[in-house]
Amino acid sequence: MNILSRVNALKQKAFEQKSFDGFLVTNSKNMLYLSNTEGASCILIPKKGQNTIYVYGLNYEGVKADGKGFNVELVKRGEKLMEKVTKQVKTCGVKKLAVDALGVEGYRELMKNLRGNTKLKIRNDLVSDIHKVKDEHELELMRRAGELTAIGMNVAQETIRLGIKEIEVAAEIEYAMRKKYSWGTAFESSVASGVRSAFPHGGCTEREIHNGDLVVVDIGAVYQHYCSDMTRTFIAGKPSAKQQKIYEIVKTAHEMAHETIKPKAEAKDVDTAARKAIEKAGYGEYFVHGLGHGVGLEVHEAPTLNQSSKDKLAAGNVVTNEPGIYLVGFGGIRIEDSELVRRRGAEKLTHGPYTLETRG
Amino acid sequence: MNILSRVNALKQKAFEQKSFDGFLVTNSKNMLYLSNTEGASCILIPKKGQNTIYVYGLNYEGVKADGKGFNVELVKRGEKLMEKVTKQVKTCGVKKLAVDALGVEGYRELMKNLRGNTKLKIRNDLVSDIHKVKDEHELELMRRAGELTAIGMNVAQETIRLGIKEIEVAAEIEYAMRKKYSWGTAFESSVASGVRSAFPHGGCTEREIHNGDLVVVDIGAVYQHYCSDMTRTFIAGKPSAKQQKIYEIVKTAHEMAHETIKPKAEAKDVDTAARKAIEKAGYGEYFVHGLGHGVGLEVHEAPTLNQSSKDKLAAGNVVTNEPGIYLVGFGGIRIEDSELVRRRGAEKLTHGPYTLETRG
Repeated sequence: MNILSRVNALKQKAFEQKSFDGFLVTNSKNMLYLSNTEGASCILIPKKGQNTIYVYGLNYEGVKADGKGFNVELVKRGEKLMEKVTKQVKTCGVKKLAVDALGVEGYRELMKNLRGNTKLKIRNDLVSDIHKVKDEHELELMRRAGELTAIGMNVAQETIRLGIKEIEVAAEIEYAMRKKYSWGTAFESSVASGVRSAFPHGGCTEREIHNGDLVVVDIGAVYQHYCSDMTRTFIAGKPSAKQQKIYEIVKTAHEMAHETIKPKAEAKDVDTAARKAIEKAGYGEYFVHGLGHGVGLEVHEAPTLNQSSKDKLAAGNVVTNEPGIYLVGFGGIRIEDSELVRRRGAEKLTHGPYTLETRG
Repeated sequence: MNILSRVNALKQKAFEQKSFDGFLVTNSKNMLYLSNTEGASCILIPKKGQNTIYVYGLNYEGVKADGKGFNVELVKRGEKLMEKVTKQVKTCGVKKLAVDALGVEGYRELMKNLRGNTKLKIRNDLVSDIHKVKDEHELELMRRAGELTAIGMNVAQETIRLGIKEIEVAAEIEYAMRKKYSWGTAFESSVASGVRSAFPHGGCTEREIHNGDLVVVDIGAVYQHYCSDMTRTFIAGKPSAKQQKIYEIVKTAHEMAHETIKPKAEAKDVDTAARKAIEKAGYGEYFVHGLGHGVGLEVHEAPTLNQSSKDKLAAGNVVTNEPGIYLVGFGGIRIEDSELVRRRGAEKLTHGPYTLETRG
């Protein structure tokens, strides 16, 4: 992993293509991506001058140890972060500064300090445009995150049975992933059973799983900061004809979308491929969310796959393909894989069988 | 739990005491606190008119099921959230709107839509002032979160031994908490050993624990959305005289702070009590962070306990008391409990022995 090549890519994009002469990074994942450090308060990348990480005492030693190639500046007790940053902005002669993200209050403070001498624009897209194309090192980590997630899903399939509580299934899933060195969960694990399976973000509760319950299991391991995202739907007992029918519709939608994932595809069209399959079967209004989203250091990042997306896929993107049908009072079914966009099509990073059947 | 009494408390504070006539809630934890729902996009509380939750299709059914006493408004595909909110702001005749949090872009969009007809102010403090005083129901959940965390810490003490990996210890801790129905971890569990223990936010890695290593274990269970936060430091093998000496200093600092936690105490003075004990022993410069922070729906919330805090403690606050000494190259020691401010002093919500010794 060459961290400085990422900084150089940002410089190229922001300074050469967009005529900024400074970039201030405040989003913690962007800082991690660009500097390989955690716990920094912000990073200033000037066109001319030293790239500087600003960090409070709490994380100073950790950032110093990891932040190779950066000047690391301690923000002492009583010092004001934005004043220090502004001073450096002036020293480096920055006249047009881009920043990835700022709250209203931080924005106002920075504007006040800059006193009209430097223009300020919010441009998170400039970092995410680079980051949404994963490099080989990142893909190695994401493949491992996908494997760990599949290990968890395998445990879900083995564990789900009548009478077990949703939260107990989650405990077994997470333990199995953690034992294989998952860094944690990319989001709150969802084991949503019965009527609760109709809520796309169901989480898990102390509810006991009953005979005939649909159980939507949505989980994600993390490996060295990289997230994964995978969903399978199981059933405790035997599926009804209607459950099986809806499962097949969702599976077809998932396959149709998978076929369209490739470089230069419009993200909207990938969503459409799945949506059409579900609409054709008469369940269009019950597919209540977009098809997917990018995955990486964040579990939701660029590009976005839905009907209002203007994103285009590119080789190196990792996106979720997660169609679902949710019938209130009946239950929900969703199938999801994290998929890598490759030159000749999509490679799934999360492998697991497509079946309602458990092995408990 | 009477959710509407929370809304009424906010109305009292924002409308009667501060002369706003509308409050827009966008922070997800504030929305959960005020409406008992998850997944909403924002909530408008007007002085005159219906309290309205705005939610996209994905979470519509879930919010409708939980959001008792609120009007629940579906934001359809293609509709603009801020336009819908602005329309309602006008309908309710809101002239002075407070909002808890907004990014620069959301702020600009809302300002544009309001067209100067309504004033807009960021006032997160109005919600956090109410929320930092926990009610009896919240304290019940926080006590349980504290118990679950103590269960995890007990497992840490039993599990830490020569040769085990930090991440394996974390796996056992989290599994034990989850089996007792913890909702997850309030933050990334930290099992930081050896030289890594000198980093206050050490996380956990595949590093094997060696003889004589200090191991800082910082963990937090979550119960029904409420967080806990607890740290103990253990040693694999026998402590050296220096390790034991530093442990005693940190323990004394922890006790000194504990004695000062009571209603009307200045948060700064509680920090000072611990800091003085460490300074007196000659390690002042190695206590590199503030003493603590509020805990509740968020693991870091109001009030703040450090030298720059202007907060005053009040009965019903839950705060961490977590002094530490960090010596780069040698290791770190921290002791932390979550403590409830009660009329006659502090009640610890996280119980565990104060000792370097493991039971592995």
